[in-house]
Amino acid sequence: MEKLNKLRKLMLESGLDAYIISSGDSHNNGYMPEYWSTRKWFSGFTGSSGLVVITATEAGLWTDGRYFIQAAAQLANTGIDLYKMGEPNVPTYQKFLADKLPNGGNVGFDGRTFSAEDFAVLKRELHGQKFAFKYNNDLIDKLWADRPPLPTRAAYEHLPKYAGLCASEKLRNVREEMADNNIDAYLVSALDDVAWLLNIRGWDLPCVPVVYAYVLITAADAFVFVDVAKVTDISSKLTSLGFTILPYEAVTEKLTELPAENTILYTAAKTNVLVADVISAKLAENKKNIIAYMKSQKTETELANIKNAYIKEGVATTRLIKWVGEQIHAGKTITEDDVAEKMTSLRSAMDLYVCDSFSTIAGYAANGALPHYRHEGTGDTVKPDGFLLVDTGGQYLDGTTDTTRTFAVGSLTDEMKRDFTLVLKGHIALSTAVFLKGMTGHQLDMLARQPILQSCQNYKHGTGHGIGYCLGVHEGPQGVAHKHSDVTLEIGMIISNEPAIYKEGRYGIRTENVLAVKELCKNDNGIFYAFDDITYCPYDNRAMVKEMLTAAELEFVRVYHEKVQETLAPLLTEDERVWLKEYCDM
Amino acid sequence: MEKLNKLRKLMLESGLDAYIISSGDSHNNGYMPEYWSTRKWFSGFTGSSGLVVITATEAGLWTDGRYFIQAAAQLANTGIDLYKMGEPNVPTYQKFLADKLPNGGNVGFDGRTFSAEDFAVLKRELHGQKFAFKYNNDLIDKLWADRPPLPTRAAYEHLPKYAGLCASEKLRNVREEMADNNIDAYLVSALDDVAWLLNIRGWDLPCVPVVYAYVLITAADAFVFVDVAKVTDISSKLTSLGFTILPYEAVTEKLTELPAENTILYTAAKTNVLVADVISAKLAENKKNIIAYMKSQKTETELANIKNAYIKEGVATTRLIKWVGEQIHAGKTITEDDVAEKMTSLRSAMDLYVCDSFSTIAGYAANGALPHYRHEGTGDTVKPDGFLLVDTGGQYLDGTTDTTRTFAVGSLTDEMKRDFTLVLKGHIALSTAVFLKGMTGHQLDMLARQPILQSCQNYKHGTGHGIGYCLGVHEGPQGVAHKHSDVTLEIGMIISNEPAIYKEGRYGIRTENVLAVKELCKNDNGIFYAFDDITYCPYDNRAMVKEMLTAAELEFVRVYHEKVQETLAPLLTEDERVWLKEYCDM
Repeated sequence: MEKLNKLRKLMLESGLDAYIISSGDSHNNGYMPEYWSTRKWFSGFTGSSGLVVITATEAGLWTDGRYFIQAAAQLANTGIDLYKMGEPNVPTYQKFLADKLPNGGNVGFDGRTFSAEDFAVLKRELHGQKFAFKYNNDLIDKLWADRPPLPTRAAYEHLPKYAGLCASEKLRNVREEMADNNIDAYLVSALDDVAWLLNIRGWDLPCVPVVYAYVLITAADAFVFVDVAKVTDISSKLTSLGFTILPYEAVTEKLTELPAENTILYTAAKTNVLVADVISAKLAENKKNIIAYMKSQKTETELANIKNAYIKEGVATTRLIKWVGEQIHAGKTITEDDVAEKMTSLRSAMDLYVCDSFSTIAGYAANGALPHYRHEGTGDTVKPDGFLLVDTGGQYLDGTTDTTRTFAVGSLTDEMKRDFTLVLKGHIALSTAVFLKGMTGHQLDMLARQPILQSCQNYKHGTGHGIGYCLGVHEGPQGVAHKHSDVTLEIGMIISNEPAIYKEGRYGIRTENVLAVKELCKNDNGIFYAFDDITYCPYDNRAMVKEMLTAAELEFVRVYHEKVQETLAPLLTEDERVWLKEYCDM
Repeated sequence: MEKLNKLRKLMLESGLDAYIISSGDSHNNGYMPEYWSTRKWFSGFTGSSGLVVITATEAGLWTDGRYFIQAAAQLANTGIDLYKMGEPNVPTYQKFLADKLPNGGNVGFDGRTFSAEDFAVLKRELHGQKFAFKYNNDLIDKLWADRPPLPTRAAYEHLPKYAGLCASEKLRNVREEMADNNIDAYLVSALDDVAWLLNIRGWDLPCVPVVYAYVLITAADAFVFVDVAKVTDISSKLTSLGFTILPYEAVTEKLTELPAENTILYTAAKTNVLVADVISAKLAENKKNIIAYMKSQKTETELANIKNAYIKEGVATTRLIKWVGEQIHAGKTITEDDVAEKMTSLRSAMDLYVCDSFSTIAGYAANGALPHYRHEGTGDTVKPDGFLLVDTGGQYLDGTTDTTRTFAVGSLTDEMKRDFTLVLKGHIALSTAVFLKGMTGHQLDMLARQPILQSCQNYKHGTGHGIGYCLGVHEGPQGVAHKHSDVTLEIGMIISNEPAIYKEGRYGIRTENVLAVKELCKNDNGIFYAFDDITYCPYDNRAMVKEMLTAAELEFVRVYHEKVQETLAPLLTEDERVWLKEYCDM
């Protein structure tokens, strides 16, 4: 209640009728440093998604179904009411604002934490209500005495042997695309787009090696807006490649200078409202984010490096499966957190390791049925019974990995084995798919989902997502999903292949490899594409019902396991090779 | 040249700088009576698709790649040049008009033969060019001395035992949908929509049992505009159900009377420009054609009848396969036309037969590789070698059928057998698909296409289309296609399942059954749908490579053949039953 009272006092002083605390940072990142945890600090609610609205007499937190129980507990005695999003008769926060505030009321928030896209939605949903938005208002900063600072660690060059294309070449390609699309100025706001373009990496976010920065490209200039202290070592290199380094804050000034008749491209979802609102140039309409498409199509150098990263990751994940089995066999007590820590320790021993690409999901039994499960504290104990699901990934200088394996830690029921096999059948169907140039991931989704639908089950998430290159573990624009998208799959794109079955309160099964799009053949019928599977980690044979697999599917598993063994062998100990051979025996 | 000279004289008298002859009728039907064959009569070109433009000094026919050779031959000495659509440096007819005519030029055509949709495209593509369109100009009628008359045969009631829902119930349901969508007036122009709503059938088109008519529905009225002489027998019934019969031509007058502030729904693709242009009411935006959606979801009565029609059709198509084999075996010479005629004769012996639902495609050898092949004269001789493809369908009072079988008439190569088996695998994959309520045919298309893509082949058409009920053999809005559509599959919809492989100049394989959407189960994961296969005709076992089929696929064929035999047995002679059993033996 104390924080709430103090904030209301500040609101009064600032003439605000309502104040919004979102969960975002200044570039709408999924992962972000503690500095941005204003909603968590203010409300005590630690979930990944939530938004707080405070008025003079009421305060509410809006969050989704994943967090209803947790939020109710964490909000106790804070004076903040829980609004369960999507439940009957629960207003949206926009509706709440519209109902509670007088016409002409002042709504304040920290504009850095609101994307131009979200702000457009807010304004649209308040259609007809006349509010004044005071979005240059970080009131929390005035209350949060020991607020953690923003990160300051220096960025570094992503060396040519990893990056492949030189930043000046990338810049030239971007400018060509801009010219083709009549774009005069291009504001690059997504941090992975910036890092890819400049061939730099940094330490500003957990799990994603990027640095807070913007790039503004015109035919004549390419400005990099960044904390200058972070790029001392690499600024001369960037300057030599055609970039001009300016302070991070200078982005608004340079945007203001753009002629009003210019056409500008920017990504509203990744540009905060404080920055977006100084732009007077005309917005490019229906234009794709140029760099998002470019960086999704990995070059041959990138692909070769990525495969190497997946081999190292294969060693680490294979060792983890072996280690878990040994602990269980030896009767040792291990927890989900032990599994996650062991995974990080195995991965960090690998060459060119940077950090994990996300917090390892180690979901034992029923926890595996929560697709985005994150253990608290030590997590549950892994008992010698049923399935353990491990979804994990790493950042290496030569690639970003993402792998999921579900494996037996004890005896399995027939139902578990049947479900494991159905997931595997879907996984194999996507892995072996052949498709035409011009086809979308949406068109392939049904191949992975069909064996699971056949059993009247389904997984309520996409089958696959794009993956960055020593960047975000989720990367667009491509995907493989039930939801329609007209993004076609192109050579060099990589996508995950992760069908699943979740039995609420009992167990979850997900099997995830990563696939790279390649050309298969070309003839009068068109240009045919297929996938290269670049993940090297054995499936759990003990969990398969062989009779449910076709001859072709059995052969797929046999050939895959042979490839895993051959590829990993040089990096494994003799003991590990023997274990892997036995684990792979059908 | 004589027709061309005469037309130019008429154009001069009418002050027209250009004249367009399209291939349409007054409701944009695919099949139409000879009265509308103006383009064929004028140019001599007999293809299904083509458009003629005449100016004072030039004349051209635009048609697509299927007809380049045929059109060139048929246009010889007519004074009409061939414009090959889609070829490099060939202008569209709109571009031709824009180039050849002066600004302010007069363009004439028979507005009855141009849909409002096509006219909108024409105007859009001439953007910036100021032409005057004189579309009340049927100049051909003044030249064509022995023009065939429009059909006059009386329409008839589609009796309640066939139709199921009473026309007054259908009208009530339509009015409810109109009210829900704030539609004041609904002009029903598609002839199958009219026939479905009124529970009447007629003889105005070849292969589609409909009658030229419009219906205009408001909250208070339901006008039927039709040649009154055609409905003498059924007008009192229609009147008693709430419809008011008016002459066909009165539609424009009634449309003119609609208040300008009314919102009207109509289908621009099925409403000609003469009718559409008198509408001053506001057009309903982004509204679905109500009756198209209603009639696509067959009622239980309709489905039960349709299944019965498919059983009769199964008898006829099975007899055809037997007959062809016997002719070949006996060394008799049969042509493609003999096959088509025999098919019609076998079908016409069935109960409730009305007519064929399209001209039977009997494509021997290389002709099978042309998806819309239509034999000329007797067609080619069916030799005792390779494949014969037969795509055929009938109109029965209790259903419209569509079946394709490709079967051996002699020895087959390994390649033929492999391709046949790939098509069968795709066909089985769609037939056995399970999907969620809310999914589209577009999402299922890949299941049928995948086995064929696996061999780096493809068929360049959709996998399936909707089918009418004693109406059009092609009916929307649903489909199963590579092209994206957001139309979801609903219970009671029926679609064809016809994957294919075409080897140009050698052979074609297509296997087509018809599937009805049904509910499979319902649980926490959603509502699951599957298909009921309602076609009863054996596949050619001799053309299958058994080793390429999975155990489940082999079992599918075995079970299907058992079902075909059991279902058809009561309608077959002993001799036919014996033959079928042998034909089905694996």
